[in-house]
Amino acid sequence: MKTVSTRGNLISTDNVEGTEVYGTGNEHIGEIHSLVVDKRSGQILYAMMSFGGFLGLGKSYYPIPWSALSYDPEQGGYRTDLTEAQVKNAPVLDPDSLFENTDDDWNRRLYKHYGMRGYWDQS
Amino acid sequence: MKTVSTRGNLISTDNVEGTEVYGTGNEHIGEIHSLVVDKRSGQILYAMMSFGGFLGLGKSYYPIPWSALSYDPEQGGYRTDLTEAQVKNAPVLDPDSLFENTDDDWNRRLYKHYGMRGYWDQS
Repeated sequence: MKTVSTRGNLISTDNVEGTEVYGTGNEHIGEIHSLVVDKRSGQILYAMMSFGGFLGLGKSYYPIPWSALSYDPEQGGYRTDLTEAQVKNAPVLDPDSLFENTDDDWNRRLYKHYGMRGYWDQS
Repeated sequence: MKTVSTRGNLISTDNVEGTEVYGTGNEHIGEIHSLVVDKRSGQILYAMMSFGGFLGLGKSYYPIPWSALSYDPEQGGYRTDLTEAQVKNAPVLDPDSLFENTDDDWNRRLYKHYGMRGYWDQS
């Protein structure tokens, strides 16, 4: 488990990666594998969550909106209102094609699944 | 050395970390250690560059604007117009206090040093 500084407005990505994610009932949901960035704007679009797997085998990765996470210093991890089922039922792109994705439509569908507004909706 | 996918608009932070940075004359300047994110907006403010050091000893880290980097697939790394001197003469915050920094003024000074506009200037 990593501890994350909660002071200030800035955070380093290497501090976020590997941090645990907990649901509203303190249940452990998964951990943050990495963040996915829009190269053009420098905006974080998703946190890539990883679930289970043994010694890295059979691990799966699901993108969730960055805004769905808030850091809980008491828990020492991120807290989310999302459930594991909700995350696992999200629209999936094959990880290889995710980074070749030039289709904002998929981004919209993912945010819509979570009932969240993307930065493209915030004018 | 890491290879970075140049297709599509998205990139994963774990793919950026560890990538080499080269100057305009192909000289190796340093490598990207991590990215620094504004928690409120999810916007990347800086890439943290690391220089030298031996077995991690005496390594130093300098924040540069994310927008100062462009990926060069032929070189297999990031290219920047910045020089090593320019980076090392930038305003420095002690790394510990960097993440406790709630002072946008420092962000402005850093971007100004590099003659770049921060996202706060782009309305």
